[in-house]
Amino acid sequence: MPRENLMNVEEFERELSESGLDAVVAVSPANVFYTSGAAIPTLRSIPDRLAMTVLPIAGETILLTCAIGEKGVAAQTWIEDIRTYREFAQSPIHLLANVLREKGWAGGRIGIEKKYLTGEYYGELVEWLPDTRFEACDDLFDRVRSTKTGGEIERFRQAAVATERAVAEAFREATVGQTERQLLELVMANLAARGACEINTCILAAADQSGLVHPTARDRSLQRGDLVRVRVEAVFDGYPSGVSRMAVVGAASAAQKEMYDRGRTVQGTVIEGTRAGVRACDVFELCVRAWAKLGVEYRAPFVGHGVGLDGEEFPILQPENQAELRANMLISIEPLIVAENGEGYQFQDLVLVGEDGAKLLAGCSSVDDMLDIH
Amino acid sequence: MPRENLMNVEEFERELSESGLDAVVAVSPANVFYTSGAAIPTLRSIPDRLAMTVLPIAGETILLTCAIGEKGVAAQTWIEDIRTYREFAQSPIHLLANVLREKGWAGGRIGIEKKYLTGEYYGELVEWLPDTRFEACDDLFDRVRSTKTGGEIERFRQAAVATERAVAEAFREATVGQTERQLLELVMANLAARGACEINTCILAAADQSGLVHPTARDRSLQRGDLVRVRVEAVFDGYPSGVSRMAVVGAASAAQKEMYDRGRTVQGTVIEGTRAGVRACDVFELCVRAWAKLGVEYRAPFVGHGVGLDGEEFPILQPENQAELRANMLISIEPLIVAENGEGYQFQDLVLVGEDGAKLLAGCSSVDDMLDIH
Repeated sequence: MPRENLMNVEEFERELSESGLDAVVAVSPANVFYTSGAAIPTLRSIPDRLAMTVLPIAGETILLTCAIGEKGVAAQTWIEDIRTYREFAQSPIHLLANVLREKGWAGGRIGIEKKYLTGEYYGELVEWLPDTRFEACDDLFDRVRSTKTGGEIERFRQAAVATERAVAEAFREATVGQTERQLLELVMANLAARGACEINTCILAAADQSGLVHPTARDRSLQRGDLVRVRVEAVFDGYPSGVSRMAVVGAASAAQKEMYDRGRTVQGTVIEGTRAGVRACDVFELCVRAWAKLGVEYRAPFVGHGVGLDGEEFPILQPENQAELRANMLISIEPLIVAENGEGYQFQDLVLVGEDGAKLLAGCSSVDDMLDIH
Repeated sequence: MPRENLMNVEEFERELSESGLDAVVAVSPANVFYTSGAAIPTLRSIPDRLAMTVLPIAGETILLTCAIGEKGVAAQTWIEDIRTYREFAQSPIHLLANVLREKGWAGGRIGIEKKYLTGEYYGELVEWLPDTRFEACDDLFDRVRSTKTGGEIERFRQAAVATERAVAEAFREATVGQTERQLLELVMANLAARGACEINTCILAAADQSGLVHPTARDRSLQRGDLVRVRVEAVFDGYPSGVSRMAVVGAASAAQKEMYDRGRTVQGTVIEGTRAGVRACDVFELCVRAWAKLGVEYRAPFVGHGVGLDGEEFPILQPENQAELRANMLISIEPLIVAENGEGYQFQDLVLVGEDGAKLLAGCSSVDDMLDIH
C-alpha cells in the first residue's frame, strides 16, 4: 500500500513542524490505521488492548502493538519498527513510556490523543513520565485527515456506492407485507454480499417512527404509504460509509412527492454553497434559510459533517463551527426534516469540496425519483 | 422490560453500599445499556455524544442523553428522570456537573468510569467540580455485571446459538473453489438473516493463515484440506455473541481429526474445572497443563473470558488474575492452539458457572464431529 496515496503526509509534516512537538502519538483506531495502514479489529472490541503509532518530528515512525496480533499487523503496515507488549504482563502505556524515554523525549513535549486515551491510561502515562509535557493533538489529526488524498477519495466513494446499491437493491426486492425487521435483514445481507466487513449501524425507521433518529425496527408489517428511512454505516476494507435513503411502500402520495422534491431542491442549493473558503456554520445557515423559505423550520443541530475513517468527523456543519471548508474535504450533507405529520425525510449526499463548488460522489440527488417498494 | 430480570439489582445495591460513594456514573455504552435498558447506537459511532446514567445510593436513577435522540431513548428505558443536552451548544459533562450539584453531591465522593471517560472529558469534569472526589468505579460495574440474571443468561444463550447456526449453515452451504472472502460473506448474510443487528467482527482464517489471530480473508480459492477458522462477534437485540468454529474443506485428514479430538478432550477437562470458587488463573493453568500432557505448549496469553454486554469481559482467564469464579458467571472458554504445521485450532464453548461445575450453553463441544465443507 503506497503510504503517500492514503495519508496526507505533506499536510501532516507541516502541522507537526508548526506544533513544535517532539512527536505525536496516535491511539485511536482510526488514527492508528491512518498512520500505519494496519486495521486491527480488536482495537474497537477490546479497547484496553491498545495499539499506538509514535510519529516523531524527525526519524522513523514506531508502531506499538500487542504481541498476540503482531504477525497480522506486520503483514498490513508500512512501518518497520514494531514494538510489542505481552498482554496482562505489561501495560501498553509502560511500553510507550519506555519508547519515549529511549528516544530522549522524556522531559520534552509530546502530542497525544486526549479525546481517545482514557482517564486511567492517561494517569498512568503521567506517572511514568512526570516531567514530560503531554498535549492534546486530536485537532492536529482532525485537520490533517480532513483533506483527502486521491486514494482515499476513491475508497470512500466505493464504500458509499456499495452501500447505496445494497440499500437500493433491498428496496427493489422488498414486498408489501414484509416486516420492518425483515427489510432491515435484507439490507444487511446485501451489504455483506457487497463486501462490507463490519456493519456498525443499520437503522430502519418506518411510518410513525420515521421521524425518530434511531428507532428499533419492529415486527410490524410494512403498509402501503409508509415512508421508510434506512441509515447504514458499514466498513469496506477499512473505509466506512454513511448512507441514508428513503422509500415509500407502494407508491408515494402527492404530499410525499412534494416534500421529497422540495428537499431535493434545498439539497441542490446547499451542495452549490459547499465550497472551499466557506465556513461550516455558513453551510448550516444556508440550509436553515433554504428550508425557511419553504416555510419549514430546520430543527436538527447540524446538517452534515466531514466523512473519514471515523465516519462522522471534523468539520461538523453546525452553527458554532467557524472552521473554513478546504478543497479535498469529503462532506456528507444529510439534513433530517420532520414533516408536520411526523414523517422524517433525510436527504443525504456525499460531496467532494473544490475551489469552485462541490462535486457529487454518491447520494440521493443522483437518483431520479423517490424509490417505491412494491 | 422488567429491570430486575436484566440487571443484577441486588448485587449492585450491595456493591454501591459497600463503596461508600454518594453515587456512581455509568458512561460506557455497555453500562448505560445495563443500567437503563436503552441501547443507543451512536454511543459507539459518535463517542463524543455521551449518554450517562447517575445511580445514587438513595433515590431515583437519572439518565443524561443528547436531545437529538431523546424520543428513541425514552421509548426504551425504564428510567423516568431524563435530562438532555443540546449537542454543540452544551457539553454533556457540563450537564452532568449541573446534575451532581443539584443533587447536593458537589464536594462528595462520586464513582465514575475512568477506563471509559476520555482524558479530555475527565479534565473538564474536574474543572467544573474541583472539590468533588471522583473515583474509578469500573471494577464495581465489572463485578456486578459478571454474575448474570436469568433473563440475561437466556439472551446471551440465544445470541450464541443464533451465531453458531449462522456459521454452521455457511459451512454447509459453502463449496470447494469458493474464495475465502465469499465464505465470509455467506457467514455475514446468515447472521443478518438470523437477526444480528450489528456485526462487529467477522474473521475467516484459512490454511496458512489459520494460525493468525485476525488475518484478512483473501480472494484465494478454498482448497481441499484447508483448515478454516471463523470468528464472529455479533449483537442480537443488544446482547453480543462471540463464537469461533472450525471446518475442513473436503474432509479432515487423520492428523487434523486427531488434533481436533485432543482439543475436545482438553476442553472437557477445562470445562469440568470451571466452577464457583476456582480462580481465573487456576482455569488458565488447568488448560496449560492439560495441553502439556499431550506434548503441546500453550502459548496464548489467556484461555477465555467472562461474557457480557462488551463481549469480552471480566474475569479474563489469564495467569495473573486471581479473581474467584462465582455462580452465574458466563464464561467463554476459547483456547487457540497453533499446531507445528502452522494450523490454528480454536475450541470455543459458552458455559454457565455453577457451584458444582459448568453447564454448557453453546459451543463446539456440543457438535459431534468437526464439520466438513463439501
